[in-house]
Amino acid sequence: MKDEIIRLGHGSGAGLTQQLIKELFVKNFKLTSLDDGVEIENRVVVSTDAHVVQPLFFHGGDIGKLAVTGTVNDVSMKGAIPKYLLITYIIEEGFKISDLKKITQSVQKTAEKANVKIIAGDTKVVEKGKADGLYLTTTGIGFLPKGVDLSTEKIKNGNTIILNGSLGDHTIAIINAREKMELMPAPKSDCASLNELVQVMLKNGKINFLRDITRGGLATILNEISSETNLGIIIEEKNMPIKKNVKAVTELLGLDPLYLANEGKLVSIVDGDTKNLIKKMKNDKLGRDSAVIGKVTDEVKGVYIRTSIGGLRPLIMQDSDPLPRIC
Amino acid sequence: MKDEIIRLGHGSGAGLTQQLIKELFVKNFKLTSLDDGVEIENRVVVSTDAHVVQPLFFHGGDIGKLAVTGTVNDVSMKGAIPKYLLITYIIEEGFKISDLKKITQSVQKTAEKANVKIIAGDTKVVEKGKADGLYLTTTGIGFLPKGVDLSTEKIKNGNTIILNGSLGDHTIAIINAREKMELMPAPKSDCASLNELVQVMLKNGKINFLRDITRGGLATILNEISSETNLGIIIEEKNMPIKKNVKAVTELLGLDPLYLANEGKLVSIVDGDTKNLIKKMKNDKLGRDSAVIGKVTDEVKGVYIRTSIGGLRPLIMQDSDPLPRIC
Repeated sequence: MKDEIIRLGHGSGAGLTQQLIKELFVKNFKLTSLDDGVEIENRVVVSTDAHVVQPLFFHGGDIGKLAVTGTVNDVSMKGAIPKYLLITYIIEEGFKISDLKKITQSVQKTAEKANVKIIAGDTKVVEKGKADGLYLTTTGIGFLPKGVDLSTEKIKNGNTIILNGSLGDHTIAIINAREKMELMPAPKSDCASLNELVQVMLKNGKINFLRDITRGGLATILNEISSETNLGIIIEEKNMPIKKNVKAVTELLGLDPLYLANEGKLVSIVDGDTKNLIKKMKNDKLGRDSAVIGKVTDEVKGVYIRTSIGGLRPLIMQDSDPLPRIC
Repeated sequence: MKDEIIRLGHGSGAGLTQQLIKELFVKNFKLTSLDDGVEIENRVVVSTDAHVVQPLFFHGGDIGKLAVTGTVNDVSMKGAIPKYLLITYIIEEGFKISDLKKITQSVQKTAEKANVKIIAGDTKVVEKGKADGLYLTTTGIGFLPKGVDLSTEKIKNGNTIILNGSLGDHTIAIINAREKMELMPAPKSDCASLNELVQVMLKNGKINFLRDITRGGLATILNEISSETNLGIIIEEKNMPIKKNVKAVTELLGLDPLYLANEGKLVSIVDGDTKNLIKKMKNDKLGRDSAVIGKVTDEVKGVYIRTSIGGLRPLIMQDSDPLPRIC
């Protein structure tokens, strides 16, 4: 690695994070996959996530809700049905117990809604000034239904790329809360558990691969897919679901929604006809704005977006996410 | 809860932690057990732990080694054989990558030695001043051999209490490193994975219950056992394994080794004859100083230590551990 010290970008989920993971963790731990969710044995799938989002409360969620949905989604992206959750708290001395209670109730409420059970945990307290209120780490355990096997290896030339909804909502909600921008109407985080939608998709389509679109955004994931499969990707700007108020803020701040984090969005790579799949996805509350956004192709190398005026613009992997501590 | 804000004592593992866990987590999450390790289904046992030890490097270990042994031990205390580990890093901006590498290598080395495999992880970075270098959270997954079923419910009047070695080593090593006391010879942390010793014990004794002696120390655990079983406990001061250099430091600082954290010690509650068990434990590197230290009895209520002059002194549950951030 070129760096001698850790920079914020090493936690961004983009290029610097990939580098850190590959050079430090994959090498030392001899990891065979970079997926968040991992199948161990007997169709058990596990995943773990640390959560350092700031601020702790935002429109559409809080760190507790995020910690549950984030891990539920990581387990779900393997096609598994999440069932159990473990959680650790690192709390800063002086943290309000009323806030801790609110967040803990949010954890439980979100877990119940996603049909997962909190089964164990741990609590540590550090001195004032040694944490930023509260950090949560969640670990999820789920079970893979028979016949389900999703991986980049299954992705083929000609496959269709589908999103379940609009991009950038979570990041813009966090920016609004963090910078006290007081945008009206307040942008709302899309923070949600995708486990049910995933099972609907598996029943109604030939899904080869799923990934939730978090740190690094859609563009980072598509670059990972392209690099792992050696296939090209072309997405269509005109099909891209982005909310008006999100678009306005990203233009104002010079951000590209394709690189922003979401917490209730997934990209799926699908075989064959997708009409029935899209219809069933749109019937689900979390898939109403589902759209075919592009295709996997051997006609290009790398990832491109066809702009509204028809040209192909490359979507490269960036070193860092523009906004730290988004989850 | 009486408090309105979180105090350091809420993370001590002693009375305040118990209160927080019971009133906030057990209630909200409807937890059925306070054990660190939990059996889910198909004899799968899981456990999770956050690690905030300070300093990150100390004689006998570092935060990486501790994060692995701590979770390996929690899974092992259910009698299970740990097999997989997940790990998350929360890193402070500016942290030296060389230190991160050292700690990551220590994680891997300790995992290999304990025969567990690191299978997944997550990395987050927070701004300078928002963490204390590095926090790690580990989650362990293990499998329970057939016929093994350990719990406080099995503990009976007359059962023998056994330790696998001396008390207080880890805490004194941390104090020495943190306060730069430069004691000679430097006290060494007992930080070690107990999974193999546990399997030796299960094969050679009628073990009813196991618990690793971490935050809160032996006295806190014995109080939990006494309160859960409604049985009394008497331990013998003269049998208590405590190293000379540890004893000297605790006397100097006014600490009681019975309340100090260890990271390679367990207490076991055993049925019937223990001669063969103790012999086999002493053959194990981590059980050389094993000793019978007392018994479970219905002759008293609560926990007592028989002092060297023969009197019974009550060992009460304390609110807080004298030393924060020991693990």
